[in-house]
Amino acid sequence: MNVTIIGATGEVGQSVINALAASPTKFNLTAIVRPASINKPEVEQSKSKGVSIISLELEDNHDALVKALTGQDVVVCSLLPFFPGAELALTSAAKEAGVKRYIPSAFGPSCPPSGVMLIREAKEIVLNHIKKIYLPYTVIDVGLWYQVSLPSLPSGKIDYALKFPATVVAEDGSHATCLTDLRDIGKYVEKVITDDRTLNKYVFAYNEVWTQEQIHSHLEKLSGEKPKRDLVSTKDIEATIAAAQVQYDKSDKSLPFIFGLAGPQYLSCEWFREDNLPERAKFLGYLSSKELYPDFEPIKYVDYVDEVLQGNGKSIYPTRW
Amino acid sequence: MNVTIIGATGEVGQSVINALAASPTKFNLTAIVRPASINKPEVEQSKSKGVSIISLELEDNHDALVKALTGQDVVVCSLLPFFPGAELALTSAAKEAGVKRYIPSAFGPSCPPSGVMLIREAKEIVLNHIKKIYLPYTVIDVGLWYQVSLPSLPSGKIDYALKFPATVVAEDGSHATCLTDLRDIGKYVEKVITDDRTLNKYVFAYNEVWTQEQIHSHLEKLSGEKPKRDLVSTKDIEATIAAAQVQYDKSDKSLPFIFGLAGPQYLSCEWFREDNLPERAKFLGYLSSKELYPDFEPIKYVDYVDEVLQGNGKSIYPTRW
Repeated sequence: MNVTIIGATGEVGQSVINALAASPTKFNLTAIVRPASINKPEVEQSKSKGVSIISLELEDNHDALVKALTGQDVVVCSLLPFFPGAELALTSAAKEAGVKRYIPSAFGPSCPPSGVMLIREAKEIVLNHIKKIYLPYTVIDVGLWYQVSLPSLPSGKIDYALKFPATVVAEDGSHATCLTDLRDIGKYVEKVITDDRTLNKYVFAYNEVWTQEQIHSHLEKLSGEKPKRDLVSTKDIEATIAAAQVQYDKSDKSLPFIFGLAGPQYLSCEWFREDNLPERAKFLGYLSSKELYPDFEPIKYVDYVDEVLQGNGKSIYPTRW
Repeated sequence: MNVTIIGATGEVGQSVINALAASPTKFNLTAIVRPASINKPEVEQSKSKGVSIISLELEDNHDALVKALTGQDVVVCSLLPFFPGAELALTSAAKEAGVKRYIPSAFGPSCPPSGVMLIREAKEIVLNHIKKIYLPYTVIDVGLWYQVSLPSLPSGKIDYALKFPATVVAEDGSHATCLTDLRDIGKYVEKVITDDRTLNKYVFAYNEVWTQEQIHSHLEKLSGEKPKRDLVSTKDIEATIAAAQVQYDKSDKSLPFIFGLAGPQYLSCEWFREDNLPERAKFLGYLSSKELYPDFEPIKYVDYVDEVLQGNGKSIYPTRW
């Protein structure tokens, strides 16, 4: 199976490459890397895992893109989904190239398509284009990554592994969300792209369901420390989002302003509104990884927490932002 | 089962009432009718079939609407979907009232959510709101109605039954579309709302697949006349749509301008792009009535054509536009 990855230098791209490169007899891997990213260390690491690298611009480069994608069975896109332009160009090229399955950049929480998260609305633009041109696809969402689920400890001893410490607690901490280890995302992708049942469907792949109170209690028990709970009401998060929206609307819509709005919107979706739960995902049309792959044993959340406390965790996006 | 219909005076609403009123022991029917429509003859006809009538404005009338919908199992909306405001108000009230299943105003062709038809995009606004508030729903699309599928005959003898004669033939007439008799729509609605498999799903309910050439040939054979084929290329329909879009964009977006754009867009979807076919609907996420209800025997297209030729057809929207 010929698989091309776009966004190979990002966290999801690396997870996908790690999973697929482990089966070199099954997958023939290519990464299309934009010239601006070609010197990132992840490109060399991907090469060493047997991934062929093609350096190409995605926008205004239709013919070269069609040529690069011709003969590919699957295209996995894990670009940051804030700017749909590049992915729109990619999907049109994938359609013309006859790609058999396109995995759009999703890999986030289950979330209604509109009115909750700006970033989900940007993804919807790409999804609607995919549907308009009838490009075979599978959406894979994965809930909240383990790697952004833990709060800081007062001692600071786990900060090395927390790019975005989870300090805000929704309401009384009783709200739940679906959690997935970043390292399992590639394994889910491997299952989904080799599974006819998932063609032209949405798949919600998640490891475990935890409340914030359960996460805090577990971390307290293991660490002997008491992480700070920044209790926030739904009303307050809505006010924060409204203020961020005002800033965003009058901004140049560059990344800092996007992040300013996306941050509280993510919290709202994942913890306050509880969109990111199995029954909600089912309502929104997703198949469940638990039903599709009942025998798969993903990384346990308690094992991830042990790893972080033992100093063996790993920060995401270590060199960025 | 308590069922409320909104849009009861329209063609779809009447089809739904006719089907459900035939089983008075199964369905307890109510129609919410806007004061502006309360004197339409269809209101009296509905009453005579046992439908309770409530006269209510839909917009800016939330509390009264919640009260009217409380205790309703199913709400079927068949309002003209050009202006989403009324239906957005209705869905919010239905959620608060605890309605168990909401059927939004769809009842059209299978069509990608964006970039093909303005009217489909208006429906998407309502669907996205339904998803945001987690209102249990089923979308029912039905393809092209038999009643708008026939061209005029040179003698004019079937014009009495053709509100919108189908004169434009896409390309060489070989393109196909799914057709459904308006009178069967209510029967499909009855099946869907009493079927747990369809909750929070899209259903594509259609009777038969015909090409335009097959329709013309069949009508020619039966009538002995030769209806005019107005052959139009894809390029030409796209130019027509682009020109209508320009007119629409600079208009007050009132019904004449909406119709000016919706007309060629419908043709594009149903005949040129061939969105309205079973495999396309499946791609777009619909369950199929053929798989859900294999034993159902809908009205045959040839029987509908016979009926029209024998003078027993019926125009849709006889008193409007």
